[in-house]
Amino acid sequence: MRNGFQLRQLASAIGGEVVGDGDFTVTGVRTLERAGAEDLSFVTRSGFRDQAEASGAGALLVPVKMAEAGEAPSRPLLLTEQPSWALAQIIGLFHPVEKPPSGVHATAVVGQGCEIDASAHIGPYVVLGDRCVVGAEVVINAHVVAGNDCRFGAGAVVHPHVVLYDRTEVGERAILHAGVVLGADGFGYALRQGVHVKIPQVGQTVVEEDVEIGALSAVDRALLEETRVGAGSKIDNLVQVGHNVQIGRSCLLCGQVGVAGSAQLGDYVVLGGQSGVADHVKVGRGVQAAGKSAVLQSVSEEGLQIAGIPAGDLRRWRRQVARLERLGSLASRVRTLERRLAEAEAVADED
Amino acid sequence: MRNGFQLRQLASAIGGEVVGDGDFTVTGVRTLERAGAEDLSFVTRSGFRDQAEASGAGALLVPVKMAEAGEAPSRPLLLTEQPSWALAQIIGLFHPVEKPPSGVHATAVVGQGCEIDASAHIGPYVVLGDRCVVGAEVVINAHVVAGNDCRFGAGAVVHPHVVLYDRTEVGERAILHAGVVLGADGFGYALRQGVHVKIPQVGQTVVEEDVEIGALSAVDRALLEETRVGAGSKIDNLVQVGHNVQIGRSCLLCGQVGVAGSAQLGDYVVLGGQSGVADHVKVGRGVQAAGKSAVLQSVSEEGLQIAGIPAGDLRRWRRQVARLERLGSLASRVRTLERRLAEAEAVADED
Amino acid sequence: MRNGFQLRQLASAIGGEVVGDGDFTVTGVRTLERAGAEDLSFVTRSGFRDQAEASGAGALLVPVKMAEAGEAPSRPLLLTEQPSWALAQIIGLFHPVEKPPSGVHATAVVGQGCEIDASAHIGPYVVLGDRCVVGAEVVINAHVVAGNDCRFGAGAVVHPHVVLYDRTEVGERAILHAGVVLGADGFGYALRQGVHVKIPQVGQTVVEEDVEIGALSAVDRALLEETRVGAGSKIDNLVQVGHNVQIGRSCLLCGQVGVAGSAQLGDYVVLGGQSGVADHVKVGRGVQAAGKSAVLQSVSEEGLQIAGIPAGDLRRWRRQVARLERLGSLASRVRTLERRLAEAEAVADED
Repeated sequence: MRNGFQLRQLASAIGGEVVGDGDFTVTGVRTLERAGAEDLSFVTRSGFRDQAEASGAGALLVPVKMAEAGEAPSRPLLLTEQPSWALAQIIGLFHPVEKPPSGVHATAVVGQGCEIDASAHIGPYVVLGDRCVVGAEVVINAHVVAGNDCRFGAGAVVHPHVVLYDRTEVGERAILHAGVVLGADGFGYALRQGVHVKIPQVGQTVVEEDVEIGALSAVDRALLEETRVGAGSKIDNLVQVGHNVQIGRSCLLCGQVGVAGSAQLGDYVVLGGQSGVADHVKVGRGVQAAGKSAVLQSVSEEGLQIAGIPAGDLRRWRRQVARLERLGSLASRVRTLERRLAEAEAVADED
Repeated sequence: MRNGFQLRQLASAIGGEVVGDGDFTVTGVRTLERAGAEDLSFVTRSGFRDQAEASGAGALLVPVKMAEAGEAPSRPLLLTEQPSWALAQIIGLFHPVEKPPSGVHATAVVGQGCEIDASAHIGPYVVLGDRCVVGAEVVINAHVVAGNDCRFGAGAVVHPHVVLYDRTEVGERAILHAGVVLGADGFGYALRQGVHVKIPQVGQTVVEEDVEIGALSAVDRALLEETRVGAGSKIDNLVQVGHNVQIGRSCLLCGQVGVAGSAQLGDYVVLGGQSGVADHVKVGRGVQAAGKSAVLQSVSEEGLQIAGIPAGDLRRWRRQVARLERLGSLASRVRTLERRLAEAEAVADED
Repeated sequence: MRNGFQLRQLASAIGGEVVGDGDFTVTGVRTLERAGAEDLSFVTRSGFRDQAEASGAGALLVPVKMAEAGEAPSRPLLLTEQPSWALAQIIGLFHPVEKPPSGVHATAVVGQGCEIDASAHIGPYVVLGDRCVVGAEVVINAHVVAGNDCRFGAGAVVHPHVVLYDRTEVGERAILHAGVVLGADGFGYALRQGVHVKIPQVGQTVVEEDVEIGALSAVDRALLEETRVGAGSKIDNLVQVGHNVQIGRSCLLCGQVGVAGSAQLGDYVVLGGQSGVADHVKVGRGVQAAGKSAVLQSVSEEGLQIAGIPAGDLRRWRRQVARLERLGSLASRVRTLERRLAEAEAVADED
């Protein structure tokens, strides 16, 4: 069914180089453990020499460095300087995305004054409010609900059960996975006479182009203006982004990250899984926070790696962890000192 | 389109005082950075003197204290003792909530024996089980699914894609945001012969009046009785509340908080983002747990501020953090002591 | 309406023993606090002697040990070696599950080539893709969306608003709670020229038999092969499982746990609430990680209890916590040593 590709074709597609038989045809891409004689497998980082050698794969995509180091197995090879990117291209060749048919499903409920491009797909049971704008080649899957005045940029893909509140903007080619909620009310109350009075949240959520947001993540709308996710940023599953937050371009937010209200992330910030950023904190460009860390204060140094609760310099955190490991030994050294000093003092008194 | 309000009108609405031109008309509310000559902006806490001065806002809502301290900019002012609450009122004036039309959408699937008030709104593709009761002015938005015997108090607002299991009760004026799940099975199993046997969860979830629950949060139903969220409590997004939990009145649970089974929170408890409360733990009235903390043991002291893993007194936690920072220096002081003492002992031996 | 059961009937059902009147009839099961004269209540673990004595329950299910220790109240008793399991059975007797009617709801949208067993229930507004297979007695509730080529094993129960991406497999008797998302794209990108290029995720998610997954949890599909949740494992609410993860049999993942990509959990692993496992980490059979812990490195020792960030031996972590508590005292002891030593040195210099 799948016709397969010759290695020379794949090399051409990724700007790579073949070592061995360029006519060798592979019919699939699989992991080292699972690949068979007709499959291409791959090594994207160092330290997999033995697994690669042991793999049943007919051919291998490997980093140039691995071949230069003489660590590549003796079988047809595809060499690349950028193995992860090359792998992405090759998987894409073997698994082209099937676009669903254009048109609006008969069961979709579309509000007044919507502009829906003829090339867009609107699936079953989708509900769109009034005045929504749906661009070219947009895919809105089953059961998506959007409020009034929402906008979907060309090529955006919205998976089932996504909910957009009023005035949410989704950029071109953005991908929203199942269960994402954009534009829900921010968490804001004013305490008066013992009652938490709701502060109306009347801003919006804006997701720029090429953003991807994982399943069951939420980005609240701003109090008055916009909560914004910058172009090319990628957000994993079950992530919470509070109201007024500004996320820069090309950031990575891993699973279960939380970013509290009004925080600001520069471009290329990376937040590890289950880490959190406190409200109103500013995180500088390229800062990388380790998983589980709590960024409680602003970090201005670009590219700094941080960890811990509260988060600080990663190397410092590692030293702290090591020192904690030795804390028992430190305590016993102090006990020893106390004993020895007492003895020394006793001797001195005798003198 | 928007007519705007005179400052004197707003002052009257919030019980505040105008300094300057009471006839000054504002047409919107915006942040200090974004506000223009016809907008009202605001300062709700101290430390924003320069930003307020630099704002292009035509008028400003400021705390009385700021004016008394002579720190308020020279333009028409609205003075208030309670700026956050006043802001909430004013935003509400500019952005009145549009109630959707009364009636049951043609596509809604309504079970037998339901009582739906004529003033309620039931949106497209809503599915209600048997014997549900929907009060006056309730709004149930698109794609909400409720099981049998659910109750919605007057004025409750349920956003799209909320799921209520059987027998869930939603109090008057409660707000449930998109994707909320109330009444799912608690996490309870009995290990027998190596198999986790499910303990049927046959209780219910009760959410009292004026509760708000953020997007994608879950409150499991009790094993036998009720899991309860007390009146006026506010829960942020992606929060997990386990079975049998009792949450008091006017609590605040920030984003991604987890409260494990059978825990009990007193009134006015505040749980910071990503904090957790262990099962069966009791948290006293007004206790405030910092973000990321883990409340592993009951806290009886009212109003105590706590932090850390495990959580303890906040000030104590801060001292611990500071001491950890100095742990390297402590270790080197011990090394110095060891060297000096060895020298002293050597000298003593020579004597 | 409910007829009730005699204690002797219940004893027979659970293989237990009656102490006192075996004809005593109970009409419900309730907690110690709520139970009345016609109810059965229960004690499943030690330390509830006083509450049991004070309970208004007409009869009590108690552990054999409690009776042997003479701590059981003087009323009709049901003795069992396995109180939690027995309780599960008894609750099941009082609350039999009502299976919804067989058949496909008129509003369901079913793709081409699906095989749906005649005994299955497909609720309103369900959307199934092409070639899905639905086994005997399967319940697919309202608003569930499944992609192409999904499989539901016999007896599986899928609650409202669950989303399954293409090729997801759900094992026999598996239970998926509301809002679960299976098979969403894993979080994988290749950075090239400053752009995060998406690596297509073309594998699948496989959930084996007797698995239960809580509300709003997500299990991403694999890059190429399968992300797998082993038979009998139970996952609580708001849990994130990354791509390629392998979860063994009979594991327990508590609320808000995160398991990062390609991690592997052995059988009977327990992960406490809000704990996390880093990518590619291997966790040995029976390992138990405390709530909030971060498993950053592989744990090979079977059955080890771990805690902390980074996670280590639980007892070691407890000692560390205790030492941290005493760190202030340690520092002051070092100060004292410094003073005393300085004095000793001064004396020595004088000599």
